[in-house]
Amino acid sequence: MREVAIIGIGQTKVDEHWDKSLRELAGDAALAALADAQINHVDSIFVANMMSSIANQQVQLGALVADWIGQRFTEAVKIESACSSGGAAFRMGYLAVASGEVDVALVVGVEKMTDSPSDEITAALATAADADWEIDHGLSFVALNALLMKRYMYEYGWSGIDFAEFSINAHANAVHNPYARFQKAIDEKRFINSPMICDPINLMDASPIGDGAAAVIIARADILPSDAPRILVAGSAGATDTISIHNRKLPTWLTPAEKSAKDAYDQAGIKSDDIDIFEYHDAFTIMATLSLEACGFAERGQGPVLAKEGEIRVGGRIPVATRGGLKARGHPVGATGMYQIVEVVQQLRGEAGETQVPQPTFGMAQSIGGSGSNIVTNILRRDN
Amino acid sequence: MREVAIIGIGQTKVDEHWDKSLRELAGDAALAALADAQINHVDSIFVANMMSSIANQQVQLGALVADWIGQRFTEAVKIESACSSGGAAFRMGYLAVASGEVDVALVVGVEKMTDSPSDEITAALATAADADWEIDHGLSFVALNALLMKRYMYEYGWSGIDFAEFSINAHANAVHNPYARFQKAIDEKRFINSPMICDPINLMDASPIGDGAAAVIIARADILPSDAPRILVAGSAGATDTISIHNRKLPTWLTPAEKSAKDAYDQAGIKSDDIDIFEYHDAFTIMATLSLEACGFAERGQGPVLAKEGEIRVGGRIPVATRGGLKARGHPVGATGMYQIVEVVQQLRGEAGETQVPQPTFGMAQSIGGSGSNIVTNILRRDN
Repeated sequence: MREVAIIGIGQTKVDEHWDKSLRELAGDAALAALADAQINHVDSIFVANMMSSIANQQVQLGALVADWIGQRFTEAVKIESACSSGGAAFRMGYLAVASGEVDVALVVGVEKMTDSPSDEITAALATAADADWEIDHGLSFVALNALLMKRYMYEYGWSGIDFAEFSINAHANAVHNPYARFQKAIDEKRFINSPMICDPINLMDASPIGDGAAAVIIARADILPSDAPRILVAGSAGATDTISIHNRKLPTWLTPAEKSAKDAYDQAGIKSDDIDIFEYHDAFTIMATLSLEACGFAERGQGPVLAKEGEIRVGGRIPVATRGGLKARGHPVGATGMYQIVEVVQQLRGEAGETQVPQPTFGMAQSIGGSGSNIVTNILRRDN
Repeated sequence: MREVAIIGIGQTKVDEHWDKSLRELAGDAALAALADAQINHVDSIFVANMMSSIANQQVQLGALVADWIGQRFTEAVKIESACSSGGAAFRMGYLAVASGEVDVALVVGVEKMTDSPSDEITAALATAADADWEIDHGLSFVALNALLMKRYMYEYGWSGIDFAEFSINAHANAVHNPYARFQKAIDEKRFINSPMICDPINLMDASPIGDGAAAVIIARADILPSDAPRILVAGSAGATDTISIHNRKLPTWLTPAEKSAKDAYDQAGIKSDDIDIFEYHDAFTIMATLSLEACGFAERGQGPVLAKEGEIRVGGRIPVATRGGLKARGHPVGATGMYQIVEVVQQLRGEAGETQVPQPTFGMAQSIGGSGSNIVTNILRRDN
C-alpha cells in the first residue's frame, strides 16, 4: 500500500443553514477543500451522511455532490455507519487511494438537520439504535446513552458534576473556532444549572445537532510539492459491536473503540502516549469518558479524573475537542467525523490559532456510531 | 494492486418475506455465501442498501449484519448510491481487498420493501430522483423513466410493443431460477394487454420491487485452492451524471454507463465483443435498451433491434438477464446489484442450469442508480 496524504481541507460553520440546500452546504465545504489543495479535479468522491433520506428526501448524495461542484461524471458513493459515517467515509477514501486505483479523492461529510420538525429528527436519530430490540420498545437515542451513563456512575461511584469538565473544556476551545456552533465558554455553575434532558444527561452533557459540511482532499503522497506540509494517514481501522447495548457483556466498555484504536496504533507503530491531539466523539459526556478509557488514555472508570486534572486541555497530557468537539463545535451527525479529520489537520499544520497544540506529530480522530456499535479510528502524522 | 477473486456466493429468493426481519434476510444470504466459500471469518463487511432508514427505521446495517452472522467486532459499513448500491458496494469491497488492507471481505446487498405501505415505498423510491428539482415538482420515479422512454420513442421511431422482447426474455429465463420472484413466462399478448402504469410504461415494462438479499465473499486470489474455479475481478469502475434528467445534454444517452463500461473494458483489456453474459439493469425496458447501447452492444437508438432479433437470449450475441433480470428475478433496490454479481458468478462457474451460457469467460454486471445518475460496471473473468 502506498503512502496517502491529506492535501486540502474545507468546512462550513455548524449552524442553522436555512438559506442553503443540502447540495450547497456540501459544495461549500468541498470547493473550499479543492481550493485549499489548489486542484480542480478529483478521481473519486466519497460522501458521508446519515439521515438525508428522511431529513432531505434525497439519497445518492455522491451524484448530487459530484454534479454541483463541477465534477460531473466522476465516480461517487455515499458511506454510512450512523454517527461514525464521517470517519468511515474517510477510511474508504484512504483505501481507494492506497489501493492504487485512485490518485486523488474528495471525502465530504454533510448533514442538514434543522429544516425538519424536531420530532422527525428525533425519529431519524433513533434509526442509529436497534429498531427491533430498542426503539420499538420506546427508547430514544438519548435514553440509551442515559442508561449507559447511569450504569457507569453506579459502577465507578461518579455523580453528574464529575462530567462537567468535558463540557467546559469543549466550550473553552470553541470560543476560538469560527466554525463552531457555540463560540462561548461555560462554567461549572452553568453546567450544574442546565436543564435535565434524560436523567442523568443534562443539556450540557449533550452535544447539539446542526447543519454542516466538512471535506478533505486525499492523494498519493508522492504528488506533494516538497515544501508542503506532509500530513499522512498513519493508521486507520474500524470495528463494530452489537447495536443494542443490552447484548454487550460489559456495556460500559467500548470494545470497538479499543480494537480500532489498537489496530490504528499498530499500523502507525506507536502507543497511545504518542498521540498529541485526540478529536474524540463527545456526543454525550459519557461517550467522551468511555472513548478516553478504551483508547488507553485513562484507566477503566477513571476518565473523569483525567478531565478534572486538566489533562484534556490544550497543554495537558491528551488535548481533546481542541476546536470545540461535538459538544460546542456541534454534531451534524453524518458530517461530524469529517470535522474531526479537518480539525486534526489544522492542528498538524499549526493552523489552530489560540488552541494550537505545540508542534504535534500524531493526531487521532475517533468517530462513534450508535451507542458504540460502529467505531472508526484514524491517525494522521505530520511528517516534515 | 493484487488479484481479487470471488470465492463464495449466496442469495435469498426475491419475495414478500413477511416472516423475516431485515437482519435475518441479510444474514441468510451472507451465511450462505460463507458456507459456499467454506470459511467462517471475514476481515471486513460491506452492506449495500438504499432505503432501510425509511422502510425499516434502521441505519448502520454494517453493525447489524456483523453481529447477526456471528462476526461481532468486524469492521462494517454501508454503501449507498440509490439503485446501484449493490454494484458500488461490490466495488468498495474489491478496492479494500485490492489495497492489501483486507484479505477476505463479505459484500451483502439487502432490501426489505414489502412491510411498508406502498405510498411510503413510492416516496422512498423517489429519494433516488432530485428532491429539489424533480420530486418537489410532482414527478415520481416511474414518471421520470416514462419521460425518458417517450423521448426515446420519439427520437428513434419506436412504439411500445418494440420493447416487449426485453420483458419476454427476462421472464423466459426466470422460469429456471428458483430465486426469482416471478418464475413464469409471458408472451407478447400478455405484454400488450398489461395495464398502463405511466404512459408509455406498462406493467411489463417495469420491474417489481421485493424483499431480498444477495452476498459474495471476495478474497485475495492467491488463497484459492488450485482446483477451485478462479473467478477474478477483471474490471471495475463507477461514474455519475446529474441526478435530474433535464440537466443532461442528451437524456437518452447514459454517459456514465458508457464511461464506466469503457473504463472496465480497458482494465480487463477487452472490448464489448468479448463479454459473454451481461447482467444489465432492466428496472424499466427503457433502461435495458439505453444500457445495451451505451455499453457498445447496439447502435444508438437500436437496442430494440438487438432484442427483436433474439440476440439478447441465451445463445444469442449478448445474453442478458440470464437469471430473470430485474424484470422477473425482481428488484429489491439496494440488493439488486449484488444479485447481478451472484448471477454472473453462477454463469462463470457453469452453475446456471437451463439458462447456462456455454463456457463463458467474461461476465459483466452493470447497476444503474437513479435515472442514470450513478452507474457502476463490474467485469468478472473465469481464469481456469
